[in-house]
Amino acid sequence: MDSYSFLLSLALILLFTKIFGIASAHVHLPQVVGALLAGIILGPSGIGILHQSDFLVKTAEIGVIMLMFIAGIDTDINELKRTGPAACLIAVMGVFVPIIGCGGVYYLFFGSGFNQLNMLKAAFVGVVFAATSVSITVETLNEMGKLKTPVGTTLLSAAIIDDIIGIVVLSVLSAMGDSTVNPGVTVLKILAFFVFTFVVGFIVYKVFKKVTIHHETSRRVAVWALAFCFIMSYCAEKLFGVADITGAYFAGVILCNLTKSRQYVAKKITAASYLVFSPVFFANIGLKTDLSGINAHILLFALVLAVMAVLTKIVGCGVAARVTKMSNRDSLAVGIGMVARGEVALMVAQKGIDGGYIDSSVFPAIVLCVVIAALITPVLLKLSLSKGKVPDSTPVSLKQI
Amino acid sequence: MDSYSFLLSLALILLFTKIFGIASAHVHLPQVVGALLAGIILGPSGIGILHQSDFLVKTAEIGVIMLMFIAGIDTDINELKRTGPAACLIAVMGVFVPIIGCGGVYYLFFGSGFNQLNMLKAAFVGVVFAATSVSITVETLNEMGKLKTPVGTTLLSAAIIDDIIGIVVLSVLSAMGDSTVNPGVTVLKILAFFVFTFVVGFIVYKVFKKVTIHHETSRRVAVWALAFCFIMSYCAEKLFGVADITGAYFAGVILCNLTKSRQYVAKKITAASYLVFSPVFFANIGLKTDLSGINAHILLFALVLAVMAVLTKIVGCGVAARVTKMSNRDSLAVGIGMVARGEVALMVAQKGIDGGYIDSSVFPAIVLCVVIAALITPVLLKLSLSKGKVPDSTPVSLKQI
Repeated sequence: MDSYSFLLSLALILLFTKIFGIASAHVHLPQVVGALLAGIILGPSGIGILHQSDFLVKTAEIGVIMLMFIAGIDTDINELKRTGPAACLIAVMGVFVPIIGCGGVYYLFFGSGFNQLNMLKAAFVGVVFAATSVSITVETLNEMGKLKTPVGTTLLSAAIIDDIIGIVVLSVLSAMGDSTVNPGVTVLKILAFFVFTFVVGFIVYKVFKKVTIHHETSRRVAVWALAFCFIMSYCAEKLFGVADITGAYFAGVILCNLTKSRQYVAKKITAASYLVFSPVFFANIGLKTDLSGINAHILLFALVLAVMAVLTKIVGCGVAARVTKMSNRDSLAVGIGMVARGEVALMVAQKGIDGGYIDSSVFPAIVLCVVIAALITPVLLKLSLSKGKVPDSTPVSLKQI
Repeated sequence: MDSYSFLLSLALILLFTKIFGIASAHVHLPQVVGALLAGIILGPSGIGILHQSDFLVKTAEIGVIMLMFIAGIDTDINELKRTGPAACLIAVMGVFVPIIGCGGVYYLFFGSGFNQLNMLKAAFVGVVFAATSVSITVETLNEMGKLKTPVGTTLLSAAIIDDIIGIVVLSVLSAMGDSTVNPGVTVLKILAFFVFTFVVGFIVYKVFKKVTIHHETSRRVAVWALAFCFIMSYCAEKLFGVADITGAYFAGVILCNLTKSRQYVAKKITAASYLVFSPVFFANIGLKTDLSGINAHILLFALVLAVMAVLTKIVGCGVAARVTKMSNRDSLAVGIGMVARGEVALMVAQKGIDGGYIDSSVFPAIVLCVVIAALITPVLLKLSLSKGKVPDSTPVSLKQI
């Protein structure tokens, strides 16, 4: 009968992410901070009544896929075209500045000599902090109604590009330690993914328009859109080695051209997302955080690494944004928006452990940094974007929570 | 990387349950028939590209819980009070007539002597067909817009009561073979469940009204309602040994008194249900059906058993309905609506295998009967309820699919 405990886990996650989320909103923090804290408090590092399970991990994965799909379907293509070049520069700076900065911190604390393994280990810790987890930023911007601003679109584009660059660098690093992975093949696969997305996108868009004629706001459109999103996520991972969330995002971008169905699909999938999947995603990040193995040295390392992880993104991306002629205020917001790390960072760290590049004693520190970066992003972002504005009156801003 | 195949499974389920569902609707069959067939065709008994997994089983469980919760929150309490006595009689007849009829068929085919074990085995096969799976009937009635008619409400009430009687009989039978289960304790637990539901329902309803003041149509109401539904499902199973779907149904009944939030909650949970959970539930019934172990003798047994399983519900419940002064047409509809068997029947059959009361060679026949009953119910129900009426014009009836 223990097969029913997943119902209790789900209920606890829904209750507490919402209660903590509302509490966060009441002290003018974004709801995601509350949701992440709920996960940490309920999980192994807190009172320990919730634990990761295969079911929760998969439900959380669907949660992040849905968030990215909704971000994609809400994309303003014209805005994306305008922000493309800027986003590229921001992404490149946002990958290499943290690799150097965070890798440097690791070398400072644990580097015992100037050999290839030590360099690889430092670089691996750096790469963990290369990829921005845009989902937290998306949720925060969405909550503030700023997702479709130039800052929002630039951030989304930059985070997508930065995932791709991060994955290329990861593959190159893995290849340096493992002769079975060919970096050239990796780059070719990533290029193939974009050709695939372009061709499939063109065909699917035409088919969608044809079969949903007279059914623009029927259940079938939402069901098929979600099925397409899952297929793109799966193909991205399995065929091309690109992150599933990248596939989900582009599935959304393809369908954002369906002018009549777009809002309907986004609305229905948003309901499924906030009712079950996205609370599990945020709580699951908290559950992953096992803080028990931390001592003073690791804690100091974690704090310095966290400061570096935050500053390198703000400075690297902020400067890049300023170079592309954004205002000081928007450049700062872009830099802050890129600070969040999440599931991709944890995935890279896990790969580092599996490959022997990250020591298990260092792992909790890395997880802590990812959590700090994830926690601090919405706070800083909200501060930077609401500066000089009158805050919304509470009843209105809390109405939709 | 095989950890991503659940995305492909979900996509296939969404695509094919919808395509088969639309095809069913085009030939004037209910969509659930198509959805069930999609599961059989994609699953081990068909082309075998889909298989049961822990994730799909849990997602399907949430699907049936959501369907029952939505049925509960759509309940018209005044209608239920009116139909209560009738529903009781229908449920009692709907439990005992099939136990005698289907048990008799088993004894006819496999009964080798008049001893306690043989009687127990026959009674166990009978009990498998005691509990109606109301979810298929609910979906069909919902699709036809007839869920809130006297027939719909009587069916729902009768199916709930019939689950409870079925579970009591199952416990008594188990107790006869196993001295560790006390039938008296089982009855006490079921009574305790209703006291618990009444007390918790009273408190939760008051708390809900208080904390959702000014937020009747906010996300938090839908999230909390769903969390409450999961908690009630969990408690029903874990604390009282009652089926989780009974807990979900009563959670819905408790919240159907929230006049302002009721529609909003039902709408949002319905979106999550049809987008992910209920397609998985229906496909999963199809996936469970392994037809490979069937030979001529078993097939003949299955067919006779299926006819008996269908007729005993139609006659038993139909006569009971007629006795309570329903019209001939409505009595027939009630009898037919009670024909469907589903997850409770399969669960009882599984318990029978575990306890040695059902031979593994007989199991496929029982599964086949459950599927036949599940497939035939919506067809017969639609025929009986639409008799003498002009069918809806296709574009309108297919609009919401």
